[in-house]
Amino acid sequence: MSHEGISPQEIEALCQTPDPSTRDFMFQQTMYRIKDPRKSIPFYTGVLGMTLLKQLHFPEMKFSLFFMGYENPGEIPSDEATRTAWAMTRKATLELTYNWGTESDDSSYHNGNSDPRGFGHIGILVRNVDEACARFEQQGVKFIKRPNDGKMKGLAFIQDPDGYWIEIFTSNVV
Amino acid sequence: MSHEGISPQEIEALCQTPDPSTRDFMFQQTMYRIKDPRKSIPFYTGVLGMTLLKQLHFPEMKFSLFFMGYENPGEIPSDEATRTAWAMTRKATLELTYNWGTESDDSSYHNGNSDPRGFGHIGILVRNVDEACARFEQQGVKFIKRPNDGKMKGLAFIQDPDGYWIEIFTSNVV
Repeated sequence: MSHEGISPQEIEALCQTPDPSTRDFMFQQTMYRIKDPRKSIPFYTGVLGMTLLKQLHFPEMKFSLFFMGYENPGEIPSDEATRTAWAMTRKATLELTYNWGTESDDSSYHNGNSDPRGFGHIGILVRNVDEACARFEQQGVKFIKRPNDGKMKGLAFIQDPDGYWIEIFTSNVV
Repeated sequence: MSHEGISPQEIEALCQTPDPSTRDFMFQQTMYRIKDPRKSIPFYTGVLGMTLLKQLHFPEMKFSLFFMGYENPGEIPSDEATRTAWAMTRKATLELTYNWGTESDDSSYHNGNSDPRGFGHIGILVRNVDEACARFEQQGVKFIKRPNDGKMKGLAFIQDPDGYWIEIFTSNVV
């Protein structure tokens, strides 16, 4: 029975009305760990076109955080405290966690798409998947799936320097 | 040397100017897998206050997708094709993947915060962490860290039904 999934009607019935106290809630960040900012920062800015919204360094705990997102660089506040509050209130940011020293040890992070599975990917909506992917090819980006591979035409999966999957899609394709 | 991290100046120098072709890119979704929508849908709607933006079922491949986000339910298009395009163009959505049958097998998903690590959490910005967490307590939500636990006061980590971590924070705290 369970292999038949669940009906749309049952899903609708499972939905609860948002409590008024949650009205101001914002899905602000998605965090994953990166091994080497010298690879990840150029990738997320130069390849994906994100902006570094804020960097935070915690010497006592030997880690750093880099908040990335699609915001106008001209809107970044010059005052650092203001910049922090600004960055933490932008919608849809990526929080990259860098534990110092990982760039030179033999560790690697797990992208969640092989056992043990869990997290799958982040997804970037683009206007033209083919054009975006042609540019990624030129930049030497790794592909899991090119737009014309497999059954699901018109969408792609690329990998960041740690192997995390990034879906590239447009609004007329899931 | 590597254990000294990386300087803010070096990080700034690693940042590349976004290519004009990436100007329309949007960080649209974060996907992870869920074991049982009968637990997850009530959690993301009733506890976190998200709305089901769109559900998609793929009987041939025996999986379903549920796009969740903070949008006004009154704005959901009534036509299903229009609704799909609308959902796929909302910023900051959570894509929950349900592989049919997982709710009744003995599998479980990996939240990325024990070995092998990778993904860490999603983060929800709220107006008042203590009030939000008091409500979560009443709802029986599992806590990894309550607002007053540990060094970082004023922020919390809760868990969803699969054990994924969700940070609850406000804008004056990282």
